[in-house]
Amino acid sequence: MKKDLLSIGDLSAEEIYRILDTAEAMREIGQRPIKKVPTLRGKTVVNLFYEPSTRTRTSFEIAEKRLSADTLNIAVASSSVLKGETLADTAMNIEAMAPDVIVLRHASSGAGHLLSRICTSRIINAGDGTHEHPTQALLDAFTIREHKQRIEGLKIVIVGDLLHSRVLRSNVLLLTKLGADVWVCGPSTLIPPGIARLGVRVSTSIDEAVAGADVVMMLRIQQERMQGAFFPSLREYFNTFGMTAERVARAKPDAIIMHPGPMNRGVEIASDVADGPGSVILEQVANGVAVRMAVLYLMAGVEDEAAA
Amino acid sequence: MKKDLLSIGDLSAEEIYRILDTAEAMREIGQRPIKKVPTLRGKTVVNLFYEPSTRTRTSFEIAEKRLSADTLNIAVASSSVLKGETLADTAMNIEAMAPDVIVLRHASSGAGHLLSRICTSRIINAGDGTHEHPTQALLDAFTIREHKQRIEGLKIVIVGDLLHSRVLRSNVLLLTKLGADVWVCGPSTLIPPGIARLGVRVSTSIDEAVAGADVVMMLRIQQERMQGAFFPSLREYFNTFGMTAERVARAKPDAIIMHPGPMNRGVEIASDVADGPGSVILEQVANGVAVRMAVLYLMAGVEDEAAA
Amino acid sequence: MKKDLLSIGDLSAEEIYRILDTAEAMREIGQRPIKKVPTLRGKTVVNLFYEPSTRTRTSFEIAEKRLSADTLNIAVASSSVLKGETLADTAMNIEAMAPDVIVLRHASSGAGHLLSRICTSRIINAGDGTHEHPTQALLDAFTIREHKQRIEGLKIVIVGDLLHSRVLRSNVLLLTKLGADVWVCGPSTLIPPGIARLGVRVSTSIDEAVAGADVVMMLRIQQERMQGAFFPSLREYFNTFGMTAERVARAKPDAIIMHPGPMNRGVEIASDVADGPGSVILEQVANGVAVRMAVLYLMAGVEDEAAA
Repeated sequence: MKKDLLSIGDLSAEEIYRILDTAEAMREIGQRPIKKVPTLRGKTVVNLFYEPSTRTRTSFEIAEKRLSADTLNIAVASSSVLKGETLADTAMNIEAMAPDVIVLRHASSGAGHLLSRICTSRIINAGDGTHEHPTQALLDAFTIREHKQRIEGLKIVIVGDLLHSRVLRSNVLLLTKLGADVWVCGPSTLIPPGIARLGVRVSTSIDEAVAGADVVMMLRIQQERMQGAFFPSLREYFNTFGMTAERVARAKPDAIIMHPGPMNRGVEIASDVADGPGSVILEQVANGVAVRMAVLYLMAGVEDEAAA
Repeated sequence: MKKDLLSIGDLSAEEIYRILDTAEAMREIGQRPIKKVPTLRGKTVVNLFYEPSTRTRTSFEIAEKRLSADTLNIAVASSSVLKGETLADTAMNIEAMAPDVIVLRHASSGAGHLLSRICTSRIINAGDGTHEHPTQALLDAFTIREHKQRIEGLKIVIVGDLLHSRVLRSNVLLLTKLGADVWVCGPSTLIPPGIARLGVRVSTSIDEAVAGADVVMMLRIQQERMQGAFFPSLREYFNTFGMTAERVARAKPDAIIMHPGPMNRGVEIASDVADGPGSVILEQVANGVAVRMAVLYLMAGVEDEAAA
Repeated sequence: MKKDLLSIGDLSAEEIYRILDTAEAMREIGQRPIKKVPTLRGKTVVNLFYEPSTRTRTSFEIAEKRLSADTLNIAVASSSVLKGETLADTAMNIEAMAPDVIVLRHASSGAGHLLSRICTSRIINAGDGTHEHPTQALLDAFTIREHKQRIEGLKIVIVGDLLHSRVLRSNVLLLTKLGADVWVCGPSTLIPPGIARLGVRVSTSIDEAVAGADVVMMLRIQQERMQGAFFPSLREYFNTFGMTAERVARAKPDAIIMHPGPMNRGVEIASDVADGPGSVILEQVANGVAVRMAVLYLMAGVEDEAAA
């Protein structure tokens, strides 16, 4: 693997499969009575979060601790980095303390690339603005493959706010690379221009998009970003794009329902679908730890010895 | 022990004594030069705090680390759980990451019971609303037994805000179960109706209540909850119910003075009593670590092998 | 070493050199593939920060983890200690949990001395008000010695807000003790009366102060403390006292440029100087981890066995 994991675009199909295969082994560690291996003992991992994210931070931190890394959390909202220092100065300062890996969550697209240019520490992008969230796409692919034994040729539909979603972007890049038939669906105000060029089918009709799908992935409506009045109301959104049992019935009988969380029940997904038989939403969370262990292991574990 | 520790009501007298006996051994670990045993190595403990509590969180975290557990802190006030996710969804997400124990502090009574129904992880209630705070009562019992060699037959008076106190509730359940003669005392506005049915003597006269007591336990006046004007002023409260040296003199000569902290000096307790010869307030804090180690050990340590 | 590290004034020159020598060995640990030694295994270190400081807390926490200590962070701004408990009560409570070391950052000068009187745990002052920040001065001395092979006889000029700076105070005490020729320079409104009695040369002319210097150390302008209008504007400050390439040219050709961070680029230091060839600012950060490991090791490591 490259020094950093900034974007799904940096990974070859072969590397993606290697991460997924490694994650299978890692998942097994999480099921042992003693959920710990010494792989990253004496390695320092800094979780540098400029946006709060309990879920992603917790998932990374558990992954790091199961690999025996020393972990440090820096939550910038509550930190003195706010004293006005730039991201670059903060990064160079953290870098000077010689961490092995920096896991970065930042509101600006490309923040990870900035750190990558500055730091010799390995950088993992844990979400940068509306750009990418590569470990989310990897855990989604892991979950799909587990249920469908393949990704190639599957009809996968992603529904919701296509404009602001880094989860969408990383998933589209990964799933098209592995040969899935990817559909995206949302209100026309939330469809980024030119998205079809990424090799996806675009629809504003959820009935058309979901028909015959193997995988239905809902995106979170980020209410805090919806000031721009992209749609009339949350109720209207649910009526037009919310995933209901009726709509799920148009997908394949064994279709799986996914959501990166946290869910807005009754906005983008009905509760009976979220908790229904096709839902793999909590499996995604569980697989997140295994996939992040795999990424950390491949980047900073035994592989590190071979690296420059 | 049961899967979870939600309430003192779940524990038999035998189980309580087993925890206290185990805590004796645990306390000894805290006195070694190397304060660490490998009992919970490879176990993950999540401290999920919906209310800030430096004292309780620190006590649990030290206990967990002395047992070699991997610990994670989630402070919800400063976390993205605030994005509007329900406690149930948050719990299911944390559960999906396969922690062994979740230590929960929550402002709603019964929050632990909700998690208990949802989660296969073991739940420890670290304070839920006005309901219970079982490890506080256990450390109080440990401290009393250490000084008095028994709990049965002691006159124990608990003074203060009886209406809002989870510490009171857990202590009353525990101490009556072990056969103490428990008195409760406070302003009539702060006495919950029906409390006498728990097997305690109720008094609004501190002089009567303290007379001949073996143990005097003061409760914190939670000034942030006193908007309802339960008493005229803090000064008035101190005059009527504050623990002064003069009032302590009515208790037995070897009576011990307890407080769960943090103290409001000059409100519920005079400084010379808080720092006086009968005070065991700091011993309570020290014993808290040992008792929490005991609970964690009995729930998730060797015992876990025997559990389902 | 004494029980606590509160002030540079507590250290003899011999003790300072011993810390610097130990830090050389510690720095080597940070360069290994496995950056960890078992020296403080089973020791508990509490980082008790009443002021936010990502940089100092992170540096201490990395140092503690590389020595295998169990670390706990208490950030008081976001903690319930705010419920109105005094520093003394908080300290006695933490003390009751038997930590080995408390690292304290506090806004009040002398807070460390207060803890020192109360606690048997070892106290490390990580910055108290405008009083001292001894580990900063130690890492500065380490960095200077590394570049100049000595401290005695060097011309060292410290420029900026002399009135509010604990970094200044600790550095002046240390550098004069080791025989440096220390100059301090800043606007007359920011020069504390009587500072010359500490054995330094005082100047309000940056050109005079910098002339022929071996070391130029800039202090942070703490904009949040500048409400008192100590100088007309930040631009004016930069024009009169900002470190520019032109001013650096008056120092010795091999002069090193230092800053404790975080920097205000364009206020106390020009970007081309901060990033220029003489800058050792990031080395200071790197050395901070090694120096703090040395202090922790000498205070709580093998030495602890010999202590009372």
